[in-house]
Amino acid sequence: MKKLINDPSNYVDEVVAGMCLAYPDVYAVDGETARILRRTRAAKGKVGVVSGGGFGHIPVFAGYVGDGLLDACAVGDVFASPDMNPMLEAVRFADTGAGVLCIVGNYGGDRMNFDMTCEMAEMEDIATARVIVSDDVASAGPDEAEKRRGVAGLVYVFKIAGAAAKAGMDLAATTAAAQKASNACRSIGVAMSSCTVPQAGKPTFEIGDMEIEIGMGIHGEPGVWRGPLQPVDAVTDTLLDHLDRDRPLGQGDRVSVLVNGLGATPVEELFLIYRRLHKRMSNAGVEIVHPMVGNYATSMEMAGASVTIMKLDGELEQLLSVPADCPFWRNL
Amino acid sequence: MKKLINDPSNYVDEVVAGMCLAYPDVYAVDGETARILRRTRAAKGKVGVVSGGGFGHIPVFAGYVGDGLLDACAVGDVFASPDMNPMLEAVRFADTGAGVLCIVGNYGGDRMNFDMTCEMAEMEDIATARVIVSDDVASAGPDEAEKRRGVAGLVYVFKIAGAAAKAGMDLAATTAAAQKASNACRSIGVAMSSCTVPQAGKPTFEIGDMEIEIGMGIHGEPGVWRGPLQPVDAVTDTLLDHLDRDRPLGQGDRVSVLVNGLGATPVEELFLIYRRLHKRMSNAGVEIVHPMVGNYATSMEMAGASVTIMKLDGELEQLLSVPADCPFWRNL
Repeated sequence: MKKLINDPSNYVDEVVAGMCLAYPDVYAVDGETARILRRTRAAKGKVGVVSGGGFGHIPVFAGYVGDGLLDACAVGDVFASPDMNPMLEAVRFADTGAGVLCIVGNYGGDRMNFDMTCEMAEMEDIATARVIVSDDVASAGPDEAEKRRGVAGLVYVFKIAGAAAKAGMDLAATTAAAQKASNACRSIGVAMSSCTVPQAGKPTFEIGDMEIEIGMGIHGEPGVWRGPLQPVDAVTDTLLDHLDRDRPLGQGDRVSVLVNGLGATPVEELFLIYRRLHKRMSNAGVEIVHPMVGNYATSMEMAGASVTIMKLDGELEQLLSVPADCPFWRNL
Repeated sequence: MKKLINDPSNYVDEVVAGMCLAYPDVYAVDGETARILRRTRAAKGKVGVVSGGGFGHIPVFAGYVGDGLLDACAVGDVFASPDMNPMLEAVRFADTGAGVLCIVGNYGGDRMNFDMTCEMAEMEDIATARVIVSDDVASAGPDEAEKRRGVAGLVYVFKIAGAAAKAGMDLAATTAAAQKASNACRSIGVAMSSCTVPQAGKPTFEIGDMEIEIGMGIHGEPGVWRGPLQPVDAVTDTLLDHLDRDRPLGQGDRVSVLVNGLGATPVEELFLIYRRLHKRMSNAGVEIVHPMVGNYATSMEMAGASVTIMKLDGELEQLLSVPADCPFWRNL
């Protein structure tokens, strides 16, 4: 295992500590275990926005703590759901009287623990709501869309929810905006190499020297197609064809797109994907607003990329444009 | 060669096109070959700031075109100096009457071509100045510091020069500020894997499965030590020891630090480096201002990282804090 790390069993805590040391105006931890990353000060008088999930996807999840984004985030082990305790502490921190929205990637452990967390919070008279993010079209068909995994679409849902809460919307309205964002996101990825979980010490899966896999999950879950490497334009077309079949876009539609690197792919190659995507969208009469190109939702040293398309309406476009402040978000 | 690219001979032009399509408010190209990346509009009434260099290091060089940074940048082939023509076009674009500062990484081709460019520009009555960046302490000893390669320190010099020009300093003062920044920067890197030049099609160098190299250049130039992988704290200590020997820092010093990923290293690991670095600096009584952690100067899919320390005085600290706007810069 060729990683720049110390003892694998301290990996998560040490990375979180590094994040807080590098950005002390944005991030702070509660408790000794560094499993709750939160804003340095709770933002009063607004709905709290919380998430949580397994580690190894930075900036997802905890990197998006910041003004106009998440107020707090529970941090799990690598690729493992956080316990209920840090989730509940995150909810308590984020609640300043207006209730708390929990944004949950669609994974069994995360859902179960957030369900229990919200039950516990309600017993403490904290109003809660949940939005499940399930944007990965490769992980289940449209008739079973509720089974899809949550991947880079999380970033958009964090952003929309954070902007809605910052704008003073109440819990119901913030939740509705976040749910709308979640419904509007579709993603699919391509993997070129595996990641390695530090405590496992070996690659999560094997892939040939000139082989790629379409539809791979961000923990290395199997995709929908494996075959030889192709030119980036062809790979991009394949990704977009999958997204198009799931939700056709056409003349006059407005979208935001995220071309996301999985961790080890040069940003140059992400711009090649964006170039092809832009051409396809232009040809179809689809307008791109606020594109993002970079590493937004990663799998440590996995090489590859994903494309997320969020179809916009006026409300989503407005909320997307509200400035936010975290080290991993670029304002319009 | 496992890359998400099209024809290697179109690699540079297509990436640059993608950058301009993704960020049309920031970047534009002149000419058919996309070898001059420039701001969408020339900023009038200030010193122009220009750079240029080989491709494959995005965001260095061209990614730093933007408000408060570079006005224009000449784009070469992968790891090859741009020709004089795009350099001269970049200088012409950036000149709005106050002269142009050229920031040049310390490589033979870049230096020679910028020397000729400035001579040609002077014949057109454009006042020019040059600052050479040579921050890589591993590439030559302190007695031959003028031979050192320019690496991630370029980012700081771009930022300081851009801020000085934006603040209305004249060419001499902008040049002096940029030269001070260059003198204040020291860098060293560690490589874990090689990059691959698209037109070469195979890795630039071989390195063992569990081997690392300290002091490697951003084109794969040989480093100063090769040996077995160590824990990240030990690797960080080695990097910092090299920097310390070259320029000791102590109680009361103020620095900015850039923990830079070379392209394929997970950001999580960069935060581990930052964590150790922060501890060392704290123990030494050195204050860190505006740390940066991320991929700022890359070598495509090279895994590894570099550490750059810029020692601050009041002027550098003030100029560093001036807001800038490009997709790859995060303001304080």
